[in-house]
Amino acid sequence: MTKSTWKLIDSTLREGEQFAHGTFRTEDKLEIARALDTFGVEYVEVTSPAASPQSQRDAVQIVKLGLGARVITHSRCVLDDVRAAIDTGVRGIGLLFATSRILRESSHGKSIQQIIDAMGPPIELALKAGLETRFSAEDAFRSEVTDLVAVYQAAERLGVHRVGIADTVGIATPRQVFALVREIRRAVRCDIGFHGHNDTGCCIANAYEALAAGATHVDVAVLGIGERVGITPLGGIIARMFSIEPQSVAERYRLGQLRELERLVARVTGIEVPFNNYVTGETAYSHKAGMHLKAMMANPGSYEIIPPEAFGLTRRLILGSRLTGRHAIA
Amino acid sequence: MTKSTWKLIDSTLREGEQFAHGTFRTEDKLEIARALDTFGVEYVEVTSPAASPQSQRDAVQIVKLGLGARVITHSRCVLDDVRAAIDTGVRGIGLLFATSRILRESSHGKSIQQIIDAMGPPIELALKAGLETRFSAEDAFRSEVTDLVAVYQAAERLGVHRVGIADTVGIATPRQVFALVREIRRAVRCDIGFHGHNDTGCCIANAYEALAAGATHVDVAVLGIGERVGITPLGGIIARMFSIEPQSVAERYRLGQLRELERLVARVTGIEVPFNNYVTGETAYSHKAGMHLKAMMANPGSYEIIPPEAFGLTRRLILGSRLTGRHAIA
Ligand SMILES: O=C(O)CCC(=O)C(=O)O
Ligand SMILES: O=C(O)CCC(=O)C(=O)O
Ligand SMILES: [Cu+2]
Ligand SMILES: [Cu+2]
Repeated sequence: MTKSTWKLIDSTLREGEQFAHGTFRTEDKLEIARALDTFGVEYVEVTSPAASPQSQRDAVQIVKLGLGARVITHSRCVLDDVRAAIDTGVRGIGLLFATSRILRESSHGKSIQQIIDAMGPPIELALKAGLETRFSAEDAFRSEVTDLVAVYQAAERLGVHRVGIADTVGIATPRQVFALVREIRRAVRCDIGFHGHNDTGCCIANAYEALAAGATHVDVAVLGIGERVGITPLGGIIARMFSIEPQSVAERYRLGQLRELERLVARVTGIEVPFNNYVTGETAYSHKAGMHLKAMMANPGSYEIIPPEAFGLTRRLILGSRLTGRHAIA
Repeated sequence: MTKSTWKLIDSTLREGEQFAHGTFRTEDKLEIARALDTFGVEYVEVTSPAASPQSQRDAVQIVKLGLGARVITHSRCVLDDVRAAIDTGVRGIGLLFATSRILRESSHGKSIQQIIDAMGPPIELALKAGLETRFSAEDAFRSEVTDLVAVYQAAERLGVHRVGIADTVGIATPRQVFALVREIRRAVRCDIGFHGHNDTGCCIANAYEALAAGATHVDVAVLGIGERVGITPLGGIIARMFSIEPQSVAERYRLGQLRELERLVARVTGIEVPFNNYVTGETAYSHKAGMHLKAMMANPGSYEIIPPEAFGLTRRLILGSRLTGRHAIA
């Protein structure tokens, strides 16, 4: 099913900059990039250098850190933005074009054929400069499948390394994601990325189903920060994948660093880690009902599918509440 | 697909009492029960009167509120607990028995056949007393499907109104939920409930897929409070279902009350509403990237699938950030 070859593209420094409270100083970006690298994400995506002079300078500095993770950027599918990206020394670029009717009308005014015509020069420039190049359809889940297949196949003919499927408005359901990724998996041979927003609460499930259907890359952000309620949280997809392939996840990522990484991003953005955060949340390993406590004493796997030790955490058995009642441990 | 006949069982006053910070005073319970009723949930589930004398007295008082919502309770599948429930005057009861090997061993020590033998008297007593009676398999997703079919069919023969499928440890994936509910939908004719924990981030997606596969009821809690990281949040499944059937959701629930209801539960439990909460979160309607702002000015549907007005909220366009850049609105 899911193969252990999937990769995480952390977009805290790109999508996360689109979060209402995500205005990072240069030193914050450098610290976050280093912490992401320590954790072990495969890619660190940063805001387009075309967005502002500071984004440009910051991208150069992050590239200069010499991280193990590949530093990539993300921009509109236009020549100027690609040129700016090449100049920073990033390893790759994610180009995007909205393909849904509503965004084609309100955003760029192009038809599907005009998108296909327009994507050639920027993609060719990026490839010629040696960038790992991705072409993504923004708002894929309000787009026609035939249109998606057409733009992805055009991108593949140009030689992109990866196509991206973006649930930009957070509307996709898990079985829809599975079905669409399957369809695209049949239509192209290159890698497939998934990017999902969480407006209707399915972003982790959707990222998981994308991988199960053959996607190779998923976008995440620390604590999920991004536009509106954000995207797939790093910790959430790590929890999901750990439950399926614990050993390879524990080998590939430094799980004991997750909590610190989240705290860093929370501090820099001035937010609180949600009380119910995946794995690292304050109560994630609290057990309270009497029936649960009794079983936990016999076997901690009774009510825990991810051992806290794997993330450097400990459990808490809440004794003496009214719920312990008659079913209490002795 | 999903029919608009699905019902919400709010378990803030039962599962939510199993939340580490969910120790409610009587007056808190009454206020929460009233607020849930105002919002429009179909059921309010309260802690078993067998848990403690206070639970017993509180259940009686909540019943006496005379809510539109049905007040039900939830207990082990044993005669004493059913008797205690009947005495409170609740309308229904959710009985449960763990069916997975791990919980059968660490929790109650019974085989599947012993569970089937044991469930008869409590279910019959509940039905004779006129209670809407549900039988649920705890830890269904670590149980054998043949075992589940056996216990559910036994419960149906006894006359239960509903069977429950519980993802007690938060391990289920969306397509697994869809497949299992489909299977159970074929095996019994009574109603089917789904209860899902969020340890791996799929509880909203799973509740949605359960409904799509033929479940009739889903358990929720305000802000998802419950054991560990909790269960399907009321606001999250409302967002998910609103995106699919906006009109009926807006007609059935008083959506403008969601934010207050969540604040009430946050205040009583001493937690913060997560920064990225569904629909009502502080930044849920914040739009920041320049490309987004431009499109939002042309059509708010560009990057919003749930209009904030439906929940009595407003959007916020963040102008003047570094990301507005060259793609800024004029
Ligand atoms: O380029 C992508 O795949 C994703 C862009 C984005 O942030 C979105 O569409 O939400
Ligand atoms: O009775 C049920 O269906 C659910 C009980 C419960 O809270 C659980 O299994 O997590
Ligand atoms: Cu995005
Ligand atoms: Cu539960």
